[in-house]
Amino acid sequence: MATLFHQITICGVGLIGGSLALVAREQKLIDRAVGLGRTLTNLEVARNRGMIDLATQDPVEAAKGADLVMLAVPIRTMPAVLGAMIPHLRPHAVITDVGSVKGWVVRELEPMLKPGMSLVAVHPIAGKETTGAEAADRGLFVNRRVIVTPSKTSRPEAIDKIEQLWRATGANVETMDPDTHDRILARSSHLPQMVASALAASLKDERVAGKLAAEYGAGGLRDTTRLAASSTEIWRDICFTNREAIVEALKTFDATFAELRKTIEDGDEEKFAALFNRGRVMRERLQ
Amino acid sequence: MATLFHQITICGVGLIGGSLALVAREQKLIDRAVGLGRTLTNLEVARNRGMIDLATQDPVEAAKGADLVMLAVPIRTMPAVLGAMIPHLRPHAVITDVGSVKGWVVRELEPMLKPGMSLVAVHPIAGKETTGAEAADRGLFVNRRVIVTPSKTSRPEAIDKIEQLWRATGANVETMDPDTHDRILARSSHLPQMVASALAASLKDERVAGKLAAEYGAGGLRDTTRLAASSTEIWRDICFTNREAIVEALKTFDATFAELRKTIEDGDEEKFAALFNRGRVMRERLQ
Repeated sequence: MATLFHQITICGVGLIGGSLALVAREQKLIDRAVGLGRTLTNLEVARNRGMIDLATQDPVEAAKGADLVMLAVPIRTMPAVLGAMIPHLRPHAVITDVGSVKGWVVRELEPMLKPGMSLVAVHPIAGKETTGAEAADRGLFVNRRVIVTPSKTSRPEAIDKIEQLWRATGANVETMDPDTHDRILARSSHLPQMVASALAASLKDERVAGKLAAEYGAGGLRDTTRLAASSTEIWRDICFTNREAIVEALKTFDATFAELRKTIEDGDEEKFAALFNRGRVMRERLQ
Repeated sequence: MATLFHQITICGVGLIGGSLALVAREQKLIDRAVGLGRTLTNLEVARNRGMIDLATQDPVEAAKGADLVMLAVPIRTMPAVLGAMIPHLRPHAVITDVGSVKGWVVRELEPMLKPGMSLVAVHPIAGKETTGAEAADRGLFVNRRVIVTPSKTSRPEAIDKIEQLWRATGANVETMDPDTHDRILARSSHLPQMVASALAASLKDERVAGKLAAEYGAGGLRDTTRLAASSTEIWRDICFTNREAIVEALKTFDATFAELRKTIEDGDEEKFAALFNRGRVMRERLQ
């Protein structure tokens, strides 16, 4: 494949940005890669693993020469990071991101672009327990969904190049409008996170006869609460940039949970079994 | 170790009963093992793996000669299974079980015993994705909690032998009264199951712009809903034999979930972060 961009600047060379960089370097889709970060330790790892040529904590230095900027930082820090870089980017630079919320990103970033620049917002639906450049993995996106949400300033040739870049990782690239993306992910990702966090929080100090109930859980409790270990900073940004859609999703769950609780309170075994089976069918489809 | 029992009859030679049988045979804690089951296919596996000497579908044949009966069938089928066996057991037989609810089991089974017999109700907190004799594993209980809940008819020597049997598996044996057990497990096990089932059921047909939201989940959705694939039969029995404690646990979760939802609706980021962190602390303690 021909080179797609001359220089990528990755803001936040973590699991996602780092994994993409590994693929892009290996397949020579990009001539040069610069990493912008808050701490040098992680950037050093990224450089040693061949993800980037230059590591810097200075947005101006990071911006110079870039025709592609990838924002892989917590959502609400994106405007400040991009703002510091904008004056120093190439005139036709493409701006992209990997945030879990797309409507807010498009609304906030688009007005910042200079004429000639393109925004192509993206959400790769992939993750691992681990974070940082150390955890990056060239196989992370294989068969994963990567959602591209074009908007007003997304030039067709910019969309095309971003899609080529992501296809090179082995991902299945799909296009959607930002608000549809946000309403879907509120249900498939943000809701499970809130359920897991609420379950874990509700059990934190729950004692019976002096014994901490959570200590009597097995694998089931561990699986159901695993997401609760996620970063507060990242999830605060997701929740308060996708509030409306998340509240809608929480209500859907609330209604089903109340229904299930009522079947138990009422001793209605038939309705209980029907509801339990509905969950089982959904879960079996996931496998 | 000396032989603890002459003949064990295991009713339901699945993951739990089969795993215990493997250990008991290997360590010669029992002279003879009989398996009672609904289908011969699973009993054949148990026999081929050396868990049992005799496989039968007839409770009378299964009862003959037994001085230990282990009930490893869905909770509400225990009385019928035991009832058919009682007249044919040895006079001082010990009855035990592996059910997830203990108060109901003690209340229902104790009145069925003949004078001289002992009930020692037990709950081994262990599980795997898989079921049946095929999945049994001699290492299943290593470092797991096994809760013994003595009651009126539990003779001290019967409790002692049952505890020795379970200690031989590598488990940590602990004693508790049945109601404390049920209130703890309602929180640590039955609640996560209901949360996972409700989450899965709420997403089953949830579509946005014609797309099934659940198809856009990643590992987080899979983990949080994993329990939803559990058996309806087993969980119906658990829910309707431990109803009061489960309703109490569901209310605790409900209150925390409502609190979390309100922080998002109100845009109260500080309270949101505090609640999210509470879940994170609980989850980190679990690891």
